[in-house]
Amino acid sequence: MNDIEISQAAKEAPITEIAADLGLSADQIEPYGAVKAKIKLPVQGNTKHSKLILVTSINPTPAGEGKSTVTVGLGDALKRQGKKVAIALREPSLGPVMGMKGGATGGGYAQVVPMEDINLHFTGDMHALTEAHDTLAALIDNHIQQGNELNIDPRQVIWKRVLDINDRALRQTVIGLGGRTSGVPRQDGFDITVASELMAILCLSKNLADLKTRINRIVIGYTYDKKPVTVADLKVGGAITVLLKDAIKPNLVQTLEHTPAIIHGGPFANIAHGCNSVLATQTALKLADYVVTEAGFGADLGGEKFMDIKTPVLGKTPDAVVIVATVRALKYNGGVGKNDLETENLEALAAGSANLKRHVDSMQQYGVPVIVAVNRFTSDTDAEINQLLDYVKNNLHVPAFDTTVWANGGGGALDLADAVVDATQKSSTFKPLYHSDDDVVSKMTTIVRKIYGGKDVVLEPKAKRQLRRFAKYGWDKLPVCMAKTQYSLSDNAKALGAPTDFTIHVREFVPKLGAGFIVAMTGNVLTMPGLPKHPAALDMDIDADGKITGLF
Amino acid sequence: MNDIEISQAAKEAPITEIAADLGLSADQIEPYGAVKAKIKLPVQGNTKHSKLILVTSINPTPAGEGKSTVTVGLGDALKRQGKKVAIALREPSLGPVMGMKGGATGGGYAQVVPMEDINLHFTGDMHALTEAHDTLAALIDNHIQQGNELNIDPRQVIWKRVLDINDRALRQTVIGLGGRTSGVPRQDGFDITVASELMAILCLSKNLADLKTRINRIVIGYTYDKKPVTVADLKVGGAITVLLKDAIKPNLVQTLEHTPAIIHGGPFANIAHGCNSVLATQTALKLADYVVTEAGFGADLGGEKFMDIKTPVLGKTPDAVVIVATVRALKYNGGVGKNDLETENLEALAAGSANLKRHVDSMQQYGVPVIVAVNRFTSDTDAEINQLLDYVKNNLHVPAFDTTVWANGGGGALDLADAVVDATQKSSTFKPLYHSDDDVVSKMTTIVRKIYGGKDVVLEPKAKRQLRRFAKYGWDKLPVCMAKTQYSLSDNAKALGAPTDFTIHVREFVPKLGAGFIVAMTGNVLTMPGLPKHPAALDMDIDADGKITGLF
Repeated sequence: MNDIEISQAAKEAPITEIAADLGLSADQIEPYGAVKAKIKLPVQGNTKHSKLILVTSINPTPAGEGKSTVTVGLGDALKRQGKKVAIALREPSLGPVMGMKGGATGGGYAQVVPMEDINLHFTGDMHALTEAHDTLAALIDNHIQQGNELNIDPRQVIWKRVLDINDRALRQTVIGLGGRTSGVPRQDGFDITVASELMAILCLSKNLADLKTRINRIVIGYTYDKKPVTVADLKVGGAITVLLKDAIKPNLVQTLEHTPAIIHGGPFANIAHGCNSVLATQTALKLADYVVTEAGFGADLGGEKFMDIKTPVLGKTPDAVVIVATVRALKYNGGVGKNDLETENLEALAAGSANLKRHVDSMQQYGVPVIVAVNRFTSDTDAEINQLLDYVKNNLHVPAFDTTVWANGGGGALDLADAVVDATQKSSTFKPLYHSDDDVVSKMTTIVRKIYGGKDVVLEPKAKRQLRRFAKYGWDKLPVCMAKTQYSLSDNAKALGAPTDFTIHVREFVPKLGAGFIVAMTGNVLTMPGLPKHPAALDMDIDADGKITGLF
Repeated sequence: MNDIEISQAAKEAPITEIAADLGLSADQIEPYGAVKAKIKLPVQGNTKHSKLILVTSINPTPAGEGKSTVTVGLGDALKRQGKKVAIALREPSLGPVMGMKGGATGGGYAQVVPMEDINLHFTGDMHALTEAHDTLAALIDNHIQQGNELNIDPRQVIWKRVLDINDRALRQTVIGLGGRTSGVPRQDGFDITVASELMAILCLSKNLADLKTRINRIVIGYTYDKKPVTVADLKVGGAITVLLKDAIKPNLVQTLEHTPAIIHGGPFANIAHGCNSVLATQTALKLADYVVTEAGFGADLGGEKFMDIKTPVLGKTPDAVVIVATVRALKYNGGVGKNDLETENLEALAAGSANLKRHVDSMQQYGVPVIVAVNRFTSDTDAEINQLLDYVKNNLHVPAFDTTVWANGGGGALDLADAVVDATQKSSTFKPLYHSDDDVVSKMTTIVRKIYGGKDVVLEPKAKRQLRRFAKYGWDKLPVCMAKTQYSLSDNAKALGAPTDFTIHVREFVPKLGAGFIVAMTGNVLTMPGLPKHPAALDMDIDADGKITGLF
C-alpha cells in the first residue's frame, strides 16, 4: 500500500479520546469533524519536567530523508514504551501539494491522520493567514488611494501579497492599473503564504494579546521621507488580529498508532523560520512528559532557527536533538546521481557522510545531546547501514540507530526511543550560538562559520545600504532569520556534501519587526515557488463517493 | 444592544440538537466547534410535499431593507407556530465585512448565530473556493510557461484570479514579470471570490460527481486559433474538485430562536447568480416542511436569477414569494436624501412605492403568490406604515404585513407567517419567464422588458463580436446571468424608483460553461469592489480574551 492507501485504511480514534489521553475534556477542544480539533486557549499545565526532543536532519535531497516520518515513528515508539507523549509538527502548505508529490504528514506506518485533510485545508489556518495578510495589503493600498494621510511611498511598500499556491507568474506584478478609481499603480509581488510575516508572528506569539502586539509592530513600508510605517499607524491591528482569532489555536490530530499530534504553524525553513508554533510546543509540553518536535529542512536551517529564534521565546531548550539521515541522501551528497541510488556504493556513502558530520558538529555546539537516526529504505544494503552506523559511533562519537518506522511504525524506533529517553535524563547545558546584543552582521558571520562551516558573509550593495538605514531605526541588533537554499550548507544549491571556504552572499534584508527578526535573503532563494512541468495536480482525482487518489 | 452584542449574549443550542430537530443523527454531521457543522452528503429525504418560500426585496438602498432579517424572522415565526422549518441562507463574503458595516446574518433578534464566525471564516468554504480558483489560475500560467502544449493564447486567458477581499488595486494587473523563470507576462486581474465561476458551480451542483463534471467544462480561455480551452483539456478537473470536497457540504447553524439554518453558497446577485446552493435548499426541503430562503439584492437581480437559473436545476419552484420593503428605502427611492429619512414624508413614500410595484408585478409573472413584508424601523410613523400597507393591498392587490422582527424575533412576523402558510396551500402554476431555446439576446430582452420595465438591450461592439463567436461554439442559447447595479432597475445606479423607457447596455459577455450560463456585463458594474475611505476594519478590535468589538 502507498501512503494515501495506508492513511485511508486507518481506523482513527475519536478526537475526544485523543484529547482525553492528554487530560483535555471535550469542552476544552473544538472539534472539526470527528478526528480533528482545535485546542482552546489558554491551556493549563506545567512545562518544567517535560522533555523536549528536536528532530532535524541532514541537507535534504531528491532522494528523501523522512524527517517527519521519523518524528512520528519516534513519538509512537515512546508511546509503545509507556511514556506520555505528544508530537508537535508543522502544518503543510497547499502550494507544494499541487506541485511535487510528497506530504508533510510522515509516511508508511509512521503518519499523522487524516493525511488528506491535513495536507488540504486542514482547519483553515493557512487560509486565515492568507486572508489576514492580503486584507492588510488591501488596506495599505486603500490608504494610499484615499488621500495617503500617512504619506506612504508607493515605491517603498514592503508588505507584499500572498497565496498558498506555487505560482511563479505572481512573483513580480504591477498592480493598481485601470485609472483613477482602481488604485495607485505600483510594482508588487506575491509570496507563498508560509513566507508571510504573519506566519512567523503566529508561530512566535504566546497568546492573543501578544499576537496583536506583534501585528501592530509590523513595518509595512516607508514614508516618502523614509520613516517606517507600522500596522499600528494604519490602525488596523485589531481587525487583522480578529481574522486570526481561531488560527492561533493549536490543532490536535493523531498518528496511525493514536499518539496525540499537535500540528500548528508553518513549514519552509528556507524562506521562513520554519518551526511549529510556540503555542503548539508549549501546549504539548504542558500536557505530555515527552514532546517530539521537528524543524524545517536541515539542521543548518530549521535546526539553527529552532535554537536561535524559537527557544528564546519558548523559554525551554531541547533536551535532545535527533538528526535524521538516510543512506540514499548521503550517497547523493557523495556524488551519486538520482537514478543510481538503489545500487550499493560504500565509497559515495563515506564521502557524503561529511554532510552528516557537519550537522552533528553544529548541533553539538548548543550543548544538547545529539543522536543520529538512520531512516532505512528498502534498497539500502546491510553493508551500507553498518558502515554508516559505525562511522557515526566511531568518528562522530554519538549514538546512532537503524530505524524502520515507514514499515513498522513505532516498532521501528524502539532502540532510538530508549536512547532518547536516556539522553534526556542527563542535565544538559544549553549554550546560545550568539549574544543577543551582537549586531546583524556579527550574528550572520557566527551562523555561517559555526553552523554552515563557511568562511564569511558578503553583503551586496543593496543589503549594505539597508543595514545603514536599519541602524538608524534601531533594528541592527535583531536576531537574523537566514533565507537560504535548503540543498546545500552554502548558498549554492549544487554544492553538496560539506563545502568549505565558501562565502554567503546577502542580496537584501527584509525587516520583520512583528516577528522580531531580520530576514537575510541569500543567493537566489525564492519566496514564491513555481510548479514543475508535470504538477502533481495532473494525477489527482476524486470519485463520486469522495475517495481521493493521486494525493501522494 | 447592537447586533454583535445580541449575538454574543445568545445561548446557542448544541449543534447536535439542531441537527436532531431536522432528523439528523450526530454521525450525519461534521461539527466545526460546538455550534457549527457541515451536513454529510448525500442526505436522504423527499422534497415533494415541502413548501418553498423565497424572500426577495425592492432595490437596495443605503437606508437598509433587512431581507436577511425578515428571512430569519419569518423562519422563527413559522417555528413558533409549530411548523417544522429550516432557513436556507447564503454565506457572507469577508471582503465587504472589512469595508462597510452590515452583516449577512440578519439583525437584532432575528439573527443567525454565531454571527462572528459566520461573517468571518465560517467553515472555510470561501477560502476553499479562493484556493481552488487560484490553483487553476496557477496551473494555466504554468502550462503556458512549460511549453504551452495546448497553444493557449496568453492574451485570451479569461480565467482571472480571485481573493475574498475588497481590493481595487488588484482589478487590473500585469503578471509574469521578472524574466524567463517567472512566467509569461500578460494582463490579468482579480475578482472577488464570490464572482468566481467556481462559486456558481458550487451553488448549482447536485453532488460531487456533478461538481467535477461542471469544473471540467469550464472554459479558461482560447487558443491562438480561437478554440475554447477547458479544464478537462488541462487535465486538472480532479485536483480542483479535490480542493472543494468539503466546501460542497452544506453548513448547519441556528437562529437566536434555535431554528435550523442551512447557510451555503455565495452572495452578490449583482455580479453572480447570488442564490444559496441547490444542495442547501434541497437539503432543507428534504428535512423540513417549510423552507424559507432568500436571493441576493432586489427581485430584479436575485429574484429573477432564482427563478430562471436556480429553479430549473433545483427541480422545485417557490410556493410563495415574499418581497421585503421598508418605508425608509421607498422614501429614498422617492427622492429623499440619506440624512432626511427619519422625517415623515408621505409624498416621497408614495412616489417611491413605484419601485415596490415594479417588483411585485415582475414576481407575479412567474405565477407564484406574492406577499409584501414591511420591515418596520423605529423612525417609521404609523401614518407611513399604514399608507404603505393600504397601497399594497388596494393598488397592488397582494397581502401586506407590518413586521417587527428586529425587535421581536419570530414574534414580529406571526401574521406574515400565517399568510405565507395560507398562500403555500394553494396550488400555484409556475410559468418560466423565457423559453430555454430562446437565444441570448432574446432572453436578455425578455428580462429587461418583463423584469426591469425597460425598453431594450443594446450591445456594445465587443459584446456583438463575442456573440458571433459564441454562436460558432454553440453557446448562443445558454441562460443569461445579468451583472447589473443593484441600486436601480436600470443599469444606471442613480435612476431610482421605477424608471421607464431605458435601455440596458451590455459591455461584454463572460461565458461560464461550467455554471452553464453566460454573464452579461452591463453598465459599469465591477467584479472587484473597493474599500471606502474609512473601512470598517479601522473600528474593529479584539481583547485578550477573544471578545470582538466593531464587527457590525
